Amino acid sequence: MSSVVTTVAAPEFRVANWLNASRPVSLARLRGKVVAVYAFQMLCPGCVSHAIPQAKQVRHTFPREDVEVLGLHTVFEHHVAMGRAALEAFIHEYRIDFPVGIDQPSDNGPVPLTMQQYQLRGTPTLLLFDRQGVLRHSILGKVHDMQVGALLAGLVAETIAQPQHPHCNDGACRI
Amino acid sequence: MSSVVTTVAAPEFRVANWLNASRPVSLARLRGKVVAVYAFQMLCPGCVSHAIPQAKQVRHTFPREDVEVLGLHTVFEHHVAMGRAALEAFIHEYRIDFPVGIDQPSDNGPVPLTMQQYQLRGTPTLLLFDRQGVLRHSILGKVHDMQVGALLAGLVAETIAQPQHPHCNDGACRI
Amino acid sequence: MSSVVTTVAAPEFRVANWLNASRPVSLARLRGKVVAVYAFQMLCPGCVSHAIPQAKQVRHTFPREDVEVLGLHTVFEHHVAMGRAALEAFIHEYRIDFPVGIDQPSDNGPVPLTMQQYQLRGTPTLLLFDRQGVLRHSILGKVHDMQVGALLAGLVAETIAQPQHPHCNDGACRI
Amino acid sequence: MSSVVTTVAAPEFRVANWLNASRPVSLARLRGKVVAVYAFQMLCPGCVSHAIPQAKQVRHTFPREDVEVLGLHTVFEHHVAMGRAALEAFIHEYRIDFPVGIDQPSDNGPVPLTMQQYQLRGTPTLLLFDRQGVLRHSILGKVHDMQVGALLAGLVAETIAQPQHPHCNDGACRI
Repeated sequence: MSSVVTTVAAPEFRVANWLNASRPVSLARLRGKVVAVYAFQMLCPGCVSHAIPQAKQVRHTFPREDVEVLGLHTVFEHHVAMGRAALEAFIHEYRIDFPVGIDQPSDNGPVPLTMQQYQLRGTPTLLLFDRQGVLRHSILGKVHDMQVGALLAGLVAETIAQPQHPHCNDGACRI
Repeated sequence: MSSVVTTVAAPEFRVANWLNASRPVSLARLRGKVVAVYAFQMLCPGCVSHAIPQAKQVRHTFPREDVEVLGLHTVFEHHVAMGRAALEAFIHEYRIDFPVGIDQPSDNGPVPLTMQQYQLRGTPTLLLFDRQGVLRHSILGKVHDMQVGALLAGLVAETIAQPQHPHCNDGACRI
Repeated sequence: MSSVVTTVAAPEFRVANWLNASRPVSLARLRGKVVAVYAFQMLCPGCVSHAIPQAKQVRHTFPREDVEVLGLHTVFEHHVAMGRAALEAFIHEYRIDFPVGIDQPSDNGPVPLTMQQYQLRGTPTLLLFDRQGVLRHSILGKVHDMQVGALLAGLVAETIAQPQHPHCNDGACRI
Repeated sequence: MSSVVTTVAAPEFRVANWLNASRPVSLARLRGKVVAVYAFQMLCPGCVSHAIPQAKQVRHTFPREDVEVLGLHTVFEHHVAMGRAALEAFIHEYRIDFPVGIDQPSDNGPVPLTMQQYQLRGTPTLLLFDRQGVLRHSILGKVHDMQVGALLAGLVAETIAQPQHPHCNDGACRI
């Protein structure tokens, strides 16, 4: 498991399409909530047997006002087998009801753009963002359900620090 | 569970392509062995969590001279998501090493031809053929591993009845 | 896994008490049936998590006219914790409904008499007897459910050889 | 699941013996830590298959300076089968290394004293105490690992309120 040391709000995901969402999901608009993102591939066995059921369990365990659950389809292999139509069928068959973003394919190689930017090394990877949008954990592989519950509740319990200049964020100050 | 009452060798599968096989698989050429066929769809959750692991366990438990294990990809929904390339990726990722046939799509509807002919009602379905090629069991849904072991060993233990006219079979008599 | 090479009917169990049985169980009286015996200790974790549930599954899978399921409580450690009253509570709480024999304690050491005679090396051990009372398999540790189903069905399928001298058995001939 | 509404430090356990402990465990001395107590019976199937493994997982997941894990053997049936020697064998075989208290038997009935005082209705029951010794949750039956992780981390994250009269506690004020 790796914890991430940063205090800067994480960059937005670069997503071609969001499924199960009425409009594009924005990390900025989720500021104030803890966000659990499961980066997965629909043909990755560990994603199917472990990460997707765990994501559902997070959705079931934590109230939505505290924790948002997202999927991110980070296809870095077998691209032809894991296109949008295939993902839609997968989402339907596995009864996934949280938003799933399709990581934007790269023009220069198999690894999609968000996966590159977040330096993910494979799937499944669990990304945990705190209420201020800072990426706090990036964990490749199987994580125990109890550990996930503990990490999320720890982030939920954090109070949001009042910014010194409340009108300044994202590198800009507004009137 | 349903047992099938017939004494006639079952019809050959109508298969567009065989994967994991150097040449098309023929039930007739498997005469003398018990054959376990798992009809599945790669995006059917019960197939992935139960039937495919069980098929591997059959391959592991019974010697190949007694029992042949086959997959049959009987796609009757989400056709665009479960084409040949997708199935090849699935077979690779799930480490499937037994032959898998792609049930021949129908021109007239979503249900492929072998699935129609065998009157399968869904996936996963386990088809068990005896040493003489007679379909003896067609079971939809989850079957307990112990039950599968028992059914297969029962078929393995059956002696092959000597045909009255040993040179006649498949509807023809040979010199 | 070890298969046992012998053609002689196995010796009777030496049992202090039979629970869940209206009278003492005798292997001789079970002649004609396949018999699956789970040697276990109620405080052996692998027995509780694996062998006892499997024994129940055998009872559920095979008809009683073909396969008899027995437990044999072979206590070789923690004797004070696994006496008859404790075993009765265990049988009640774990909803065990097949006969369970208490292996006769030895005067000379911790290993009880049947366990000695059958040269068992630990618990759980699965003993499989064929229809003629011959011990055919003695398997220490975890056995896959499919394997157990296959072994039992193989024994069930064996025809009972007609003895050449039907009045002779157990080393004696009777008028 | 039931949450407990109280702000008073919970009463000490009434325990005949503590196993796996160099001296009697006192809730008062654990003040400052979150405490997870698994009330169980060694012959209760759900305790063995679920609660004990979960208790071990809590011990594995949370550092001991934050969370203390205790067992409480609350025998209310089959008393003769679950005495101290039997429990010691159970603790040994199941590799339990956290302290386990034997709930003090009652002179007047089958339910032991701590179980009475805490009004437990069965086993397994999970009791969660906050850093100030207040019982916050009393949950009978199976609880999901993720939920336990979340509840514990939530309690761990609570800051300890400074008492208004720091020298007053337990109903007395000290100089």
